[in-house]
Amino acid sequence: MTERSVPIESDAPLPDGLVDTFWRYEQALMADDVPTLDLLFEDDPHTLRGDAGGVLVSHEAIAAFRRGRGGAPKRLVDRVHVRVLSPELAAVVAVLRPAGGGRGQQTQVWRRGADGWRVIAAHVSGAIPAIDPRVWRVVGTPLVDATGSGALDGETIAVKDLFEIAGQRVGGGVPGYLAEADSATSTAPALATLLAAGAAVTGIARTDEFAYSIAGVNPHYGTPPNVAVPGAIPGGSSSGPASAVALGQATVGLATDTAGSIRVPASYQGLWGLRTSHGAVPVDGLLPLAPSFDTVGWLTRDLPTLRRVAGVGLPADAGTLPTQIAVAPALLATLDEHVRSAFWTGLGELVGEGRLPVPIEVPLTGVAETFAAFRTVQAAEAWRAHGAWLSAHPGAVSGAVAERFALAAAVTEEQESAARVVLAAERAKLRAILQESVLLLPAAASGAPQTTADAATIDRIRMQTLQLTCFAGVAGAPCISAPLLAVDGAPLGLGLIGSPGTDLALLDLAGTLLP
Amino acid sequence: MTERSVPIESDAPLPDGLVDTFWRYEQALMADDVPTLDLLFEDDPHTLRGDAGGVLVSHEAIAAFRRGRGGAPKRLVDRVHVRVLSPELAAVVAVLRPAGGGRGQQTQVWRRGADGWRVIAAHVSGAIPAIDPRVWRVVGTPLVDATGSGALDGETIAVKDLFEIAGQRVGGGVPGYLAEADSATSTAPALATLLAAGAAVTGIARTDEFAYSIAGVNPHYGTPPNVAVPGAIPGGSSSGPASAVALGQATVGLATDTAGSIRVPASYQGLWGLRTSHGAVPVDGLLPLAPSFDTVGWLTRDLPTLRRVAGVGLPADAGTLPTQIAVAPALLATLDEHVRSAFWTGLGELVGEGRLPVPIEVPLTGVAETFAAFRTVQAAEAWRAHGAWLSAHPGAVSGAVAERFALAAAVTEEQESAARVVLAAERAKLRAILQESVLLLPAAASGAPQTTADAATIDRIRMQTLQLTCFAGVAGAPCISAPLLAVDGAPLGLGLIGSPGTDLALLDLAGTLLP
Repeated sequence: MTERSVPIESDAPLPDGLVDTFWRYEQALMADDVPTLDLLFEDDPHTLRGDAGGVLVSHEAIAAFRRGRGGAPKRLVDRVHVRVLSPELAAVVAVLRPAGGGRGQQTQVWRRGADGWRVIAAHVSGAIPAIDPRVWRVVGTPLVDATGSGALDGETIAVKDLFEIAGQRVGGGVPGYLAEADSATSTAPALATLLAAGAAVTGIARTDEFAYSIAGVNPHYGTPPNVAVPGAIPGGSSSGPASAVALGQATVGLATDTAGSIRVPASYQGLWGLRTSHGAVPVDGLLPLAPSFDTVGWLTRDLPTLRRVAGVGLPADAGTLPTQIAVAPALLATLDEHVRSAFWTGLGELVGEGRLPVPIEVPLTGVAETFAAFRTVQAAEAWRAHGAWLSAHPGAVSGAVAERFALAAAVTEEQESAARVVLAAERAKLRAILQESVLLLPAAASGAPQTTADAATIDRIRMQTLQLTCFAGVAGAPCISAPLLAVDGAPLGLGLIGSPGTDLALLDLAGTLLP
Repeated sequence: MTERSVPIESDAPLPDGLVDTFWRYEQALMADDVPTLDLLFEDDPHTLRGDAGGVLVSHEAIAAFRRGRGGAPKRLVDRVHVRVLSPELAAVVAVLRPAGGGRGQQTQVWRRGADGWRVIAAHVSGAIPAIDPRVWRVVGTPLVDATGSGALDGETIAVKDLFEIAGQRVGGGVPGYLAEADSATSTAPALATLLAAGAAVTGIARTDEFAYSIAGVNPHYGTPPNVAVPGAIPGGSSSGPASAVALGQATVGLATDTAGSIRVPASYQGLWGLRTSHGAVPVDGLLPLAPSFDTVGWLTRDLPTLRRVAGVGLPADAGTLPTQIAVAPALLATLDEHVRSAFWTGLGELVGEGRLPVPIEVPLTGVAETFAAFRTVQAAEAWRAHGAWLSAHPGAVSGAVAERFALAAAVTEEQESAARVVLAAERAKLRAILQESVLLLPAAASGAPQTTADAATIDRIRMQTLQLTCFAGVAGAPCISAPLLAVDGAPLGLGLIGSPGTDLALLDLAGTLLP
């Protein structure tokens, strides 16, 4: 269909130049002629452009998006409807026929200025894929039925691609591993428990490669979207379950947390996340990363759902929590000033509103040494879990994860033993603190970085974050990420660490923080 | 979040009454207060409203849509951006937070008239589900990998839920049947052949209950959308594969056609469809409907893809076709006048452009008797295939399909034998005609009816359509539905019937009809 033959329906005579400029824009879009596209959007901080990824505000933000996307999907314009608002204003609605099938719509508001017609607001809807491969590997209606009925009736689970499900393969975020996987003959108990209580599995969701990252970026499948912060990374390694829950495509993410893999995506996406006490939920049928720290947990959009899931998934004895709340300034020392400030501001508001007692400060020493020891043991165990397979499959993992495994391969037995000694001492100290107080901290060291952030920034944030998140792992303690803080307009989780075994009590405590 | 606390960002002082009217609309939407919604959209034949289902034009069409939908999905308004165009014109972009998670956007163009502010164009994007349950039962990235490489590299298949796939269940469009199904241990040869040639399975797509309908309406899972005709039924029984292909969610629909189940959805949705010669593609591993007529075939968006799939799926010997083209006026006699007219107009254009020789007219007698005999044998075989299961599962199928099976149960052996005698004679006559000529006919008796059409209309169209489509089944002949005609602005397939075994030659002939 050529431009000339596309039907244009208008409610009034077409203003001069409007249709020509519309087609000029369309041609530039198909050619990815970014300078022309930039020219034809009004150069104004209020110019708007929205699509399924979110709404961009300002000519600058829209131009940056265009530079980064590498062209729009190919399409034909099927027909055009014009509402003439004045000789200088028009709304132009184009019905689109994407080259790959389906249907789309583009609504543009055009204004004529001294230089001609310019778009001042645009809204684009494209074809919808059968499945979002960034988020999911496989989905069904449901993929796995509930096996019973109970507290989780109607809940839908996004299962991180580390759990065995009878009849399904485990992919671990690594295509080569998936390709060789046999279908599991049974279902991991951590999932079976939820199915028996009425939940069904919507699908198997993405993870970072072998879950050895907190970024949520998997080069094989694409980066799951961050609903809360358009253009930002989702956080990982439970990226798929977290994005699925935030997108409303599941109500519960069944995930794992070794060094922050539930808490970081929860913090980045404004979700509730619980890393459970070490050993509280069985890890049978789970692809391991570092068994000394691996835990099962959940992500939800609201606390009542998380509480119900935890009530099903955890032993009934909730333990009891001290009433004292503590903060460890040494843990906050490595944070950027504006994040530390956001944390204190959020705490101040909770205290001011009477929802939180005034926290005491507890001394914590050797933060850097503890973190180093944690990483050493995690690396040694990760290599023990995956080294043989990775050695037999060079190139199977990529980028930062490959570098991390390369370092892991080099950890010596002596280094590991020494690190375990450090951790044992630190664990005892931490548990003593948690006997006295619930420890509060940011669940991550920042809001979600943009996907376009440079590698140095991402790595710096990663180290800051792991330095916070590793402490629950060292203590074997439960930790919630509660979506109660904000930094630079992005969500930031409030982390709550309790004594091992107090998971349910910790959730109940979190409930008291809500308005 | 209450209205008062929703951030509103505007590029100029807000015109009087705009924001109040915006909130009035939002409240009416959440209350499904249709009169207020109708009032606040400008009463004009050019008023526009678009969403993922398509663009509606005119206040009347929008009002009808609202009356039929039973309320909009619940949501909160997260923030609002206003572009003030004049004291009487504004574009209002709302970022939405659907109650079930995810994100949406609503763009409205408002105009102030004598009665106040009114929406003159709206574009709504809502949350995207993990899977469209109307179209699919399960999808993956892919669900089943290719097993080889060849002519179908990169093609993605929507498999009608009648074919066995190793490790997956067959549901047949009936939830009770699915619930009892075991996973298949092998893959139907009709699919295995495509996988070996490089295609992968995207997912398992919906069918009418036990494929015993040509409407594409399954009360258990919802009605798949018709991309070509917003608000219309998709056609069935291969509704899921057809809609999946039209939506761009797969490139190939692997389907079956007993009495029109490929040709009707192809016709309704503007797709290419081929019902193959009886026996040309193995039906092993296929849930039967009426084995005397069951055939395998494919749906695609373009002819080259269909030709490649057919080249893989069919025996290499293409047979040869006569050069003579024929039309059977007796077959067209039961059509509505405007459909017959559309058929002749389309043929006239093809002849006028030199793409088709002038067709001869062939006499066909006993059209009604043949149709009656076809239905009797189809019914007897359908009951033989499913009667025992249906008797053990009362209420498992519903509505028109249940009625059809009830009638099928009543067919006597005598009736069936008599009908087979009629069909044998008719088959011989038809095959003689097809030796001399390729027979052209409409692939369906109308464009796609709206989902809101009354049952009597649907049934009348169904009978008209089956009277056309049954002839390929009676002859055991291949029949293409080519998206080359139109009626009332909707697609209408041109049917081409060749002698049994000439499937590939028939596709090549169809290629000569293209501009």
